[in-house]
Amino acid sequence: MRIARFSIDGTVGFGVVVPAPEGEPGGAAAGAVSRPTAGLALDIIKGHPFGDFDRSGKLVPMDQVRLLPPVLPSKVVAVGRNYAEHARELGHEVPQVPVVFFKPSTSVIGPGDEIVYPGFSTEVHHEAELAVVIGRLCKDVPRERAAEVILGYTCANDITARDIQRSEDQWARAKGFDSSCPLGPWVETELDPSDLAMICTVNGEQRQLGRTSEMVRDVADLIVHITAAMTLLPGDVILTGTPAGVGPLHVGDEVAVSIEGIGTLTNKVATRD
Amino acid sequence: MRIARFSIDGTVGFGVVVPAPEGEPGGAAAGAVSRPTAGLALDIIKGHPFGDFDRSGKLVPMDQVRLLPPVLPSKVVAVGRNYAEHARELGHEVPQVPVVFFKPSTSVIGPGDEIVYPGFSTEVHHEAELAVVIGRLCKDVPRERAAEVILGYTCANDITARDIQRSEDQWARAKGFDSSCPLGPWVETELDPSDLAMICTVNGEQRQLGRTSEMVRDVADLIVHITAAMTLLPGDVILTGTPAGVGPLHVGDEVAVSIEGIGTLTNKVATRD
Repeated sequence: MRIARFSIDGTVGFGVVVPAPEGEPGGAAAGAVSRPTAGLALDIIKGHPFGDFDRSGKLVPMDQVRLLPPVLPSKVVAVGRNYAEHARELGHEVPQVPVVFFKPSTSVIGPGDEIVYPGFSTEVHHEAELAVVIGRLCKDVPRERAAEVILGYTCANDITARDIQRSEDQWARAKGFDSSCPLGPWVETELDPSDLAMICTVNGEQRQLGRTSEMVRDVADLIVHITAAMTLLPGDVILTGTPAGVGPLHVGDEVAVSIEGIGTLTNKVATRD
Repeated sequence: MRIARFSIDGTVGFGVVVPAPEGEPGGAAAGAVSRPTAGLALDIIKGHPFGDFDRSGKLVPMDQVRLLPPVLPSKVVAVGRNYAEHARELGHEVPQVPVVFFKPSTSVIGPGDEIVYPGFSTEVHHEAELAVVIGRLCKDVPRERAAEVILGYTCANDITARDIQRSEDQWARAKGFDSSCPLGPWVETELDPSDLAMICTVNGEQRQLGRTSEMVRDVADLIVHITAAMTLLPGDVILTGTPAGVGPLHVGDEVAVSIEGIGTLTNKVATRD
């Protein structure tokens, strides 16, 4: 099941992604099949995806809503150098212990939102990542119970000011600036994350290509490691690292992260004014 | 004005700290003057301290409430090595650019709450710090307007797993574990932060002593630097660095951070079970 968060006429809600009825606006017969949301609708949720909920049966064509970040995380816990080839491309060894850092809630944007090029950097990079969405409050999760705390998965782009990352010891500014954490387009709740193809394109051109099977530590290991230190809350997000091929973004670029079984997260790079 | 956040009978509220009426429970004549809250009461706030509010005139003796963290920050943005002598005691130079890192909302505890010794460390340190409480949403704040975005100041303890800080590149686990960010006891809204005495004691014995005038970058500089990268929200907190004298905490210790013009934040160190 795919759960999207959306706004329509100023109201925010969650909906289950379903095919649009044929012949309806936005429906399968309505054309525009090149847009990723074409032919899709949302079955509006009664209740909350982190608790009990029902599908209302009330459908809204996807092209009539604005998709929002699929969750509002209290924190995004990210992991660096979790793909060996990417660690090497930046001149690092794979660390003995996962490199853990935070991206704040103010860095999160949704599908279609603009990545605003920060004024303090001249070298902003894309980093396509599988994002794990936590479904319940958890601490000290044992490996065999890691799956229980996961609501689902979405696509993420761990936007990084590479020059600032090099010049500053801690990555809070390099990876925590506003709009540096695109998430979306929705949360896929039924997915085996162990071997998914991931691709990142810039203006349609392939930049990163990898498989989640290349992760040094898998999703369960990361949940064990992170929750040994801190409580995760419903909606918190874990970014699981990026495969090789990171590179610069420029104002005007369109960057897309696609993950097998989830979908595509697309964002444009813009200047602030 | 001092604004505290408290709970009483399961209800959470804000109150202005005032002297307790004489002869009332918790009042000046009621004894127990050695407790920092003795003789104090809370004038319960109608409205919210980040917006318009009035004092209700309804007083609750301080010893009948539980003080909570004075704010619920969406993020705590902390600054490392901002006191030259402390940087040197850990073998570092003062950095050219402030070292910025995050502590998550799940790390925040209030006055009197327990610092839970984390299972993954054997060397947990205290770090007394002046905390700045942000009063309004802000981004790209110029130095001359920094004072406008500040609601007030409180005491903080940037609890640090020093062994993990040494062994891991990024400090998310070393400084972001549950209960690693005691804040309190309240927010002082009228205070010049430029030259305040700070002291940290463990079991009554002085460990850290400094003055905020020793900061390498002052509060206004830090606000400029941080908001050049990210939006701060009402209730967000900036930790401004710790003076020399950091050292270990052990289970059973009582650690107290006192800052001139604010008050004292006291927490005990406990094991988890």
